[in-house]
Amino acid sequence: MKNEMMTTEENVANIVSATELMDHWQGHRRLTRKLIELFPEEHFYTFSIGGMRPCSELMMELIVMAAPGAQGLVTGNWQTEDQLAVDFSAKAPSTKAEVLAMWDRSTEQMNAVWPQIRPERFQESDAAFGVYANKVIYSLFYFIDNEVHHRGQAYVYLRALGIEPPAFWDRA
Amino acid sequence: MKNEMMTTEENVANIVSATELMDHWQGHRRLTRKLIELFPEEHFYTFSIGGMRPCSELMMELIVMAAPGAQGLVTGNWQTEDQLAVDFSAKAPSTKAEVLAMWDRSTEQMNAVWPQIRPERFQESDAAFGVYANKVIYSLFYFIDNEVHHRGQAYVYLRALGIEPPAFWDRA
Repeated sequence: MKNEMMTTEENVANIVSATELMDHWQGHRRLTRKLIELFPEEHFYTFSIGGMRPCSELMMELIVMAAPGAQGLVTGNWQTEDQLAVDFSAKAPSTKAEVLAMWDRSTEQMNAVWPQIRPERFQESDAAFGVYANKVIYSLFYFIDNEVHHRGQAYVYLRALGIEPPAFWDRA
Repeated sequence: MKNEMMTTEENVANIVSATELMDHWQGHRRLTRKLIELFPEEHFYTFSIGGMRPCSELMMELIVMAAPGAQGLVTGNWQTEDQLAVDFSAKAPSTKAEVLAMWDRSTEQMNAVWPQIRPERFQESDAAFGVYANKVIYSLFYFIDNEVHHRGQAYVYLRALGIEPPAFWDRA
């Protein structure tokens, strides 16, 4: 009954800002970065459970999606800055330090492009990476959720290695 | 530069609706329900990696947070319908069927209370479960992210047991 009193317009106003959404994503990315720092380098490229990808490949998937994904959400251009299609099978650099450098470069690129997003954009339909048709807001949620999902898996790897993961709630 | 041209008001309008946010959460909950259905009953209460909680306890945490959480987000009342404070150490019922029945009851309760949420509510500050001070929108994201995080961990349990988890993207 009560929901019938609420018009669609009332229901969509002022719930969250584009800036808050990026802050939320970057908070998750700060936590994931802590996990990479904590993950033992000797296990980063090799440790696996149940035939799953090692942590390096899970993290590389997040890197190839992050900055090109943010750019695509904002502009509708789903290619990398080098004008190459995103390569989901890209291999991680051979040291954690290089992975972290890529991570930080992605952070800067995401923060640089995000302020250009038009608020109407979130309700537009677009095919993320040219493939996954969805509303932009849902593609954004997908990118964030995909990171939380794989990072949760890397938490299990850390626990299996006897290492306490960073606190899930700490996004500082 | 471009972001300076965008006022705060423009930036917050019409990005996502309360209905879309609940649809998004329930999509994740449908996926988690599939995982519970797929998880072997003989391992549900006992299988663990690295000293972590078994799947039953991870799922129980999601159940105690879901409906009381949705109610709290909507109303500011962070107690259960039985007027008890949420018990994060609540034990799972002794069969998966009972867990799934609790899950479905939660789904109904969440859908019943959600249409009453005022859109301004998402930007209000409140202490989730009386403890975790945050904007309501961020508490909502926390509940969803916490589910994705623990479900991702349960995916590793399934893989370790030699079982293919449900597709992450399938929220039907």
